[in-house]
Order: sequence, then C-alpha cells, then structure tokens
Amino acid sequence: MNVIEPGAGRRLGDEETAAVIGILRQRFGERLQTGEAIRREHSHTTTYLAAQLPDAVVVAQTTEEVAETVRICGEYGMPVIPFGTGTSLEGGVNAPFGGISIDLRTMDRVLAVHAEDLDCTVQAGCTREALNSHLRDTGLFFPIDPGANASLGGMAATRASGTNAVRYGTMRDNVVNVTAVMADGSVVHTAQRAKKSSAGYDLTRLLVGSEGTLGIITELTVRLWGIPERIAAGVCQFPDVDAACRTTISVIQAAIPIARIELLDALQMEMVNRYAKLAYANRPTLFVEFHGSPAGVEEQTAFFQAIAEDHGGTAIEWAEKSEDRNRLWKARHNAYHAVTAWRPGAKAVATDACVPISRLAECVGETQADIERLGLTAPIVGHVGDGNFHVSPLVMMEDEDEVGRMETMVARLARRAIAMGGTCTGEHGIGQGKMKYMAEEHGNGLAVMRAIKKALDPADIMNPGKVVPD
Amino acid sequence: MNVIEPGAGRRLGDEETAAVIGILRQRFGERLQTGEAIRREHSHTTTYLAAQLPDAVVVAQTTEEVAETVRICGEYGMPVIPFGTGTSLEGGVNAPFGGISIDLRTMDRVLAVHAEDLDCTVQAGCTREALNSHLRDTGLFFPIDPGANASLGGMAATRASGTNAVRYGTMRDNVVNVTAVMADGSVVHTAQRAKKSSAGYDLTRLLVGSEGTLGIITELTVRLWGIPERIAAGVCQFPDVDAACRTTISVIQAAIPIARIELLDALQMEMVNRYAKLAYANRPTLFVEFHGSPAGVEEQTAFFQAIAEDHGGTAIEWAEKSEDRNRLWKARHNAYHAVTAWRPGAKAVATDACVPISRLAECVGETQADIERLGLTAPIVGHVGDGNFHVSPLVMMEDEDEVGRMETMVARLARRAIAMGGTCTGEHGIGQGKMKYMAEEHGNGLAVMRAIKKALDPADIMNPGKVVPD
Repeated sequence: MNVIEPGAGRRLGDEETAAVIGILRQRFGERLQTGEAIRREHSHTTTYLAAQLPDAVVVAQTTEEVAETVRICGEYGMPVIPFGTGTSLEGGVNAPFGGISIDLRTMDRVLAVHAEDLDCTVQAGCTREALNSHLRDTGLFFPIDPGANASLGGMAATRASGTNAVRYGTMRDNVVNVTAVMADGSVVHTAQRAKKSSAGYDLTRLLVGSEGTLGIITELTVRLWGIPERIAAGVCQFPDVDAACRTTISVIQAAIPIARIELLDALQMEMVNRYAKLAYANRPTLFVEFHGSPAGVEEQTAFFQAIAEDHGGTAIEWAEKSEDRNRLWKARHNAYHAVTAWRPGAKAVATDACVPISRLAECVGETQADIERLGLTAPIVGHVGDGNFHVSPLVMMEDEDEVGRMETMVARLARRAIAMGGTCTGEHGIGQGKMKYMAEEHGNGLAVMRAIKKALDPADIMNPGKVVPD
Repeated sequence: MNVIEPGAGRRLGDEETAAVIGILRQRFGERLQTGEAIRREHSHTTTYLAAQLPDAVVVAQTTEEVAETVRICGEYGMPVIPFGTGTSLEGGVNAPFGGISIDLRTMDRVLAVHAEDLDCTVQAGCTREALNSHLRDTGLFFPIDPGANASLGGMAATRASGTNAVRYGTMRDNVVNVTAVMADGSVVHTAQRAKKSSAGYDLTRLLVGSEGTLGIITELTVRLWGIPERIAAGVCQFPDVDAACRTTISVIQAAIPIARIELLDALQMEMVNRYAKLAYANRPTLFVEFHGSPAGVEEQTAFFQAIAEDHGGTAIEWAEKSEDRNRLWKARHNAYHAVTAWRPGAKAVATDACVPISRLAECVGETQADIERLGLTAPIVGHVGDGNFHVSPLVMMEDEDEVGRMETMVARLARRAIAMGGTCTGEHGIGQGKMKYMAEEHGNGLAVMRAIKKALDPADIMNPGKVVPD
C-alpha cells in the first residue's frame, strides 16, 4: 500500500495508474473501461470549461462496489469522481488530476416508496423523470426540476433546485437522508426517516451540496408531495424588467404560495418568439403557476393578477387544463433551445447567482447594463421568486476577446451578488468554475470547509480540485 | 501557552483554573463571576441529570468578547459552555469537566429586520417571545415555539422546534445563517442572506443542532412569516390513542397544511381537567390549528372534521377569535403545569422521540403499554403531525427503583423509535442524556461526527462531554 501524504492526491505516475486499473479490471471485468470515447463522455460538462478526462471508468452496480472502488483507489491515492448524468454546469465531473470516474447510471432503481410517510428511497442514478414516472399512480410527485433530467444523486450532490423551489424548496429541504461512501471506503447512512431529529450533527445537509468532495452518494431518501388538486398557469408581460421584479417581490412578500414564478427578459423573449414562432411582445415576461385546492388557486390567481396590474403588467393569460398550460408555458420550456439556436456556432455559457429578493430588481438591472457595456449577447431567465437568476452569454469560444468579456461579466455578476448579501451560485454549484469566489463569499468559513475536507478526506481523493480551493 | 493534547480537554488543575480565571477577571471585571449560586444557576437544566457546575461565568456582550474568552480558554484547554436561558432538557449546559460558562443573555438585541426579505438578524440571547414582541407592528412573526421562552441561539444550537413545526419547519429550516465563534477563536459567518445557495458546504446546518460542541452561535438570521389572515383552532376527542394517531396520519397524508396538531393522551387529559378545572372526557384529544386565507381555513377545517369523524372523533369544537382560541387551547397550554402538579414531590422527567408518521400509532401504543408494565405515571403529549411525541414520567427521585424503571422506559422508547426508522430525539437534543443512543442511531455516521468534532475542536474545549461520545 502506498502511503499518500494528506493533501497530495495529485496525478499518479503511469505505473501506479496502471496498477490501480489492473486491480479494478480484475474486479469489474468489462465494467472497467479505458477507451477514450467513454472517458471523454465521463468528463462531459455543459460548460465552456475544457474537458479533463479520467484515467478509467467503473460502472458500479451497488453501494458495496462503489465502496470497493474507493478503497482500492484510496490505497494508491487515486482520485475518484462520481458520475450521474453528466449535466453539471461548473466542471463537476472533470478529472483535473486523472482518476477513476465512478458511473452510477445503472444504479437507477426506486428501492421503496413510503406513500404514507410522503417519502421514497432511490439509488443515486435514478433520474427525476424516472422517479416521477414510477410514482405515476400514487398521487404523489417529486417537485425538484433542474433544467436537465439529472440523477437524484447528482442533484443532491449539487444542492440542485429549479422552477418549483419557490414553493417546494431545494434538494437541501427535500433530501431526508443519504447513503454515502466516504473516503476510507466506509458506508454511512446519514439519518433515519423521521421528519425531524435533534440527534447530532446534520450529516445529510453536510453531504448535500458537497459535490462528491466528502463522500459519494449512492442512495437517498427524498420527500414526496401530493399532486395538487388544481393547477393554474399564467403569463404576464411588463414594460420593463424592474416592474417584473417588483411584481415578484410583492408576491413573495404577500406570502402567496406561488408554485413557480419565472422571468424571461426582453432578449430572451425575442429569442423564444423567433425560435418557437410565438407572437409575444419582446418585453420582460413572468410565467407563473399556482398549485392548491380550487378555492385556493382561485384566490391566488386573483391576488397575483391584481399585483401584476398594479405594476403595469398586461396581456395576462391563464390556463388550467394540462394541454393549455403547456401551450402557455411553451416560451419558457423552449428558452434554452431558443438561446442555443440564436447565434449559430456560439456556445451558450450558463451562469447563475442568487440575492435576497429585496435586491433582485437592482441586481438584474445592473447585470443587464453590464452585459450591454461589454457588448455581449446574454439573455436572462430567472427563478425570480427565490431571487435566483441565470445569465446565458452566447460566446464564440475561439474569439479570445469575447471569451474575456464573458468572463468579466460572470465575475462581476458573482461579486455583485455577494456584495448584495447573495451568493455566487444559487443552484449550479461551485465545481471548478466558481472556486475563485469561495474566499470572498465565505471568509473565515472557508477555513472551516477546508478543515472538514481534510478531516474526512485526508488524502484528497474525493473529486479533488473542486469546491474548496487549496 | 499550555499545549493541550487533542482529545484531552478534561478538568484542569487548580492552578491552571485559577490562571484562566485571573486572566478573564482582568479582562471582564465584574462580568466574570465565580460565586456558587451563579455557577449553579448556569448548570441548571430542566432534567433529572445532576448539576455539574462550571468554574466561572463570563457575561459576554459582543461576538468579539465571546471570541476573546474562547481564545483565552483555548490556550489552557479550558472548556467553554455557551449559556442561553438554561432551558435545555438533556444536560446541555452542564460542565462535567469544569470550564467557563459564557452567558449570552445580555446579547439580546434584534439587529435588523428585513421585512421585504422575510428575515431578521438577532443576537443569540434574544428570546423567541422578545423577537415576536419586537415584530408586533410588522405583520410578521417567528413561528418556532419550544415549550420554554428559549433564546434563539440556544434554539438554533439544539435544532429546536415545537407545535408549529408541522407547518413552518424546525430551526433547521428557519435559520438562514449564523455567526459563530469557533474553537480557535475565529469568527465565522456561515452564509449570506440569499434564499438558496449551492456555494460549498452547508456550515449553517452543521452548526444548527451541534449544541455548542463545534462553535458558539453569537448571532443568527432567521426566517419570518406573514401573520396568517385567518386562524381557526379546534379540539376533538377520540375513543383511543390509535384513532387520534390515525386521524393525524390521514391529515398529513392528505397534505392538509395544518399549522398545529397536538395529541394529549387520556392520562394527560385527566391531569389537565383536574389542574385547570376543565370538563373534557378523560380521552385522547387532538388540539389543532389552521392558518390561511378565509377560504383556505374553511376548506381545511371542513376536511379535518370529516377525517376526524371517520375515525370516531367526537365533541369537536372550533374557535376563531383570539380569546376563544386561547380558551379552547387552555388544556394544551396547561399541560406542563398539570403534570408537575399531579404528584407532589415528583420530578417530571421530559423525554421525546420521533418516528415516521406511518409508525406513530404503533410507537405511542407500545410506549403506553410499556409505561403500564413498568408501573409508571407518564402522560404523553405529542407534536404528532411530525411523528414527534413527549413522555413525561413523574418520578420520586429518591426512589431508586422508580428511577430505574423510568430509565428503562426512556431507553426502550429511544430504541423503539430507532428500530422504527425514527430518532431518539425529535427536538430535545442529545446533550449528556442521550449520548448512549448515538452509536445505535448513527452507525458509521458517528465516526464522521467524531472526525468533524476533532477537526474543528482538536483540544475538545467546546462544550465537552456532550453529543458525540468518545
């Protein structure tokens, strides 16, 4: 056994790498793969960050297999990088120091649905859409919906959220417990299924959002919710982004239990109108949804309409039937594809930030001004009920100057959000891309994170080079 | 500077103790106290656990003073024990190895109310009632209500909850960030005020529930909620505890957003009838409350009534005006005093457990049978919507046999809850009293907790002898 100095965990020599791969091949046979195509697929991230390939991929089928892989890698100080669906946005699955990508996609079973307790236990590779298909006949659903059809393990690891978070919370609120393989190969079950507990440190919340740097989540229990009796969807257009943000702020402050409230700015609407052949005005638009009893939804929609009109909202449309709601939300659903189709050859870079809702209008406004100043094309879509919004600059990646201006915009946005009492990422995670803001956002807290990382992963084998900067 | 071996942190010699006290006296003058009465007060716990006095008490007025005290104590390996209102239930403020009690009661200011963001920042010594008084004219309130008028810092440290948690969550869900003094005297601010973040490890949730063993919370930001437009309170009696539990389970499964649902068992009702001169039947009773819009509350109460009647609920009463609601809830409000008055000379021991709601009826039933088998007098009151309930055995503390039977009951309850997928404490915390169940509840997770404790407090000076057993 090689002795690895704490904090080392950097790229192994060829001989040691070959030794680890040899042992893993003996153990996993064809489920250990080293072909370049598969390694490239496993470093795929939907960012502009360059791919960094792992040395090999192990397709794990059980928690015990993940633990075995981690133990074998641990003996050599070989990095391990968990892989769900490869939809992370900040380089989460890259392998900057090489290592073994542990593919959890075939660990996709729903292990138990406890309908009476409103929770269910799944393997980490189960996707959110697969879970909701499985739940079809139960009257229950799992609400967290990041853009991609991500794996639930990956969503927990990145503390994901999405359009429903304003009502149902994020993965922080919806993960009841996780089973995780730690750096020493031990298997930890972080909590029981009781709805609350005061029994010791909150290991569940420690692993949620740790992006594979403290442990590899292999199973998890998540909360389920009753499918609402009535759903109403709405669209409303505004004279400017400030009016749309102020409407959002008023709705949240009035404690209307809105299920979704999404902002598309004027540029994003223009893109969507062209892409999906829609006829909206190219003006900032809110897409909303209300869930509840018939009387409750009626109250909420009337209240929303009054607030929106107070702020100059016009062209308000409502829909209740499923197909009508889908038609109404078509612009929102097509937002991503409309962006990528807008400027052929350009990369749509995704970044996000989140501020206290009182600062939302100001933060969006300053960001738009900065985009204009920098000469970028960058639409804004926001889960604005949480103060969270995305900016998607369209960048020709071979144009160094444009890449530089994009990076300036992203950095200023992160710092603007932090200065306003917000965070450099509301839901995308830190990965590699946002490590540079960790010190600014967390101050002395970063030393605490480092101490925890070092205590739980002394040889720095767990997804090294992510989240916590050296 | 004395070098303290990691993991030592046990009682200092007289000379070193005198040295630390001398330094602190020089720094804090009369705010350093060593009189026995004040030291006894600061080891006060509302349990049957014996008091263990600190060596001295420092009344801190600022975060920096707490940090200074911790730094001075750290140099000598002297334990520090944070003190809020002294209402912990598992020996949380005891000083088993001596040490300095850091009294935060005069740090009681509301520092900022951000009404527009539905949050506010307070010093740790601010009590929940003081905060709600302060918020009187804002239309907002802070819902978490453990039995005592505890300090918000203490409530965060023990991950407290109470009757409103079924709707509003616990301190886990309602703390936005904390400022904490760590073992090395550094001051950490765990998060910004944005509603969500994916930026690194969740230090807020790590400190919430850590009971002063990782850091001393000196300030915190908590979520606020709009005072509901309409409140309806109700009472309903049941033929047996099983029917009351099954009603609760149905209400939760139907996703009715009930604000409170409290069970008093037949013995507790008998105690309350006698104490408060009420005329209820001595039968298991649910006290409920609904918050919402007028239409919403009407829907919810009708739905509850139908479910309750399906399970044999009778004598259902409703009230909406504040004074009528208070009258209706009088039995619940008097539950604690009714218990202590029942058997003069006896100590009312408080213990709690929490199980998945599907197991609630079974767990309460088995516990009642065990109480009877052991010949104890022990009423049950539960925040049953969360699967959480309290048992309060009345024990003559000089009767060793009775104390032994009480301890047997408490231990069996903890193990029963864990075996049912629940926890040995839903809201009281671990303190000293429940450390013996940590291994059983957490398995390998306990080693992770130990590693975190050791990393963040290598000399074991932060509230030693609590939460994480050696």
